[in-house]
Amino acid sequence: MLSKINHVGVAVASLEEALPFYRDSLGMTFSGTEEVPSQLVRVAFLSVGESKIELLEPTSPESPVTKFLEKNGPGVHHVAYGVDDIEAAIAALVAKGTRMIDAVPRNGAHGARIAFIHPKSSGGVLTELCEVHDHSH
Amino acid sequence: MLSKINHVGVAVASLEEALPFYRDSLGMTFSGTEEVPSQLVRVAFLSVGESKIELLEPTSPESPVTKFLEKNGPGVHHVAYGVDDIEAAIAALVAKGTRMIDAVPRNGAHGARIAFIHPKSSGGVLTELCEVHDHSH
Repeated sequence: MLSKINHVGVAVASLEEALPFYRDSLGMTFSGTEEVPSQLVRVAFLSVGESKIELLEPTSPESPVTKFLEKNGPGVHHVAYGVDDIEAAIAALVAKGTRMIDAVPRNGAHGARIAFIHPKSSGGVLTELCEVHDHSH
Repeated sequence: MLSKINHVGVAVASLEEALPFYRDSLGMTFSGTEEVPSQLVRVAFLSVGESKIELLEPTSPESPVTKFLEKNGPGVHHVAYGVDDIEAAIAALVAKGTRMIDAVPRNGAHGARIAFIHPKSSGGVLTELCEVHDHSH
């Protein structure tokens, strides 16, 4: 069902402070930042193998990432897996008794269609399904 | 410097309780469990794309994973990146001012040679370098 780890989402207080470790020290390829207004975050993507690290900086005190940072400090916020057909993946999970936060996909960064699994069903790790049709590379 | 996400380490109270989500609901390929006495953990590996999910169950109250679970509950414990030459990777990181927990590699699960970067240098995410020479697949 899953093709790969699409990305690991990391909550940070500041993209500018977090970027040097991933880009300069670890040498990942930085592909720019994007604001995702629906999530009240600004994100930066860095490539490693077939996957990405997605740094998440809150743009508002109301952002879910602000609440995460207050509770946990900076750290891994979610793990996202690539799927070819997100409706089919959601249907298969629901059929196995998995609770979804998003029973219907919504739009994420980079034109992806995404859906989160409820942490009650995923052992405490916020888990995202991510259908990307990326023709740029 | 990094070839891929080698694995995402997830702290769990019980491998048996955590496995069904990854193996049965998400459909990852389960490749068995292994005890790592030096870390006081029992681990289970599940494959997804070029990466793995490593479930970590503590085998002792003294395990670092016990302390992690007490503080955070179950969740992502570390992110591990594949490197071809771990000594060269450590030297490059130290030259850039990165603090290492392990300045000298030690042995991890599955015959890997591993080294952890100090969280002070990695924005709060416990980060592992992992040199694996895996001839089995």
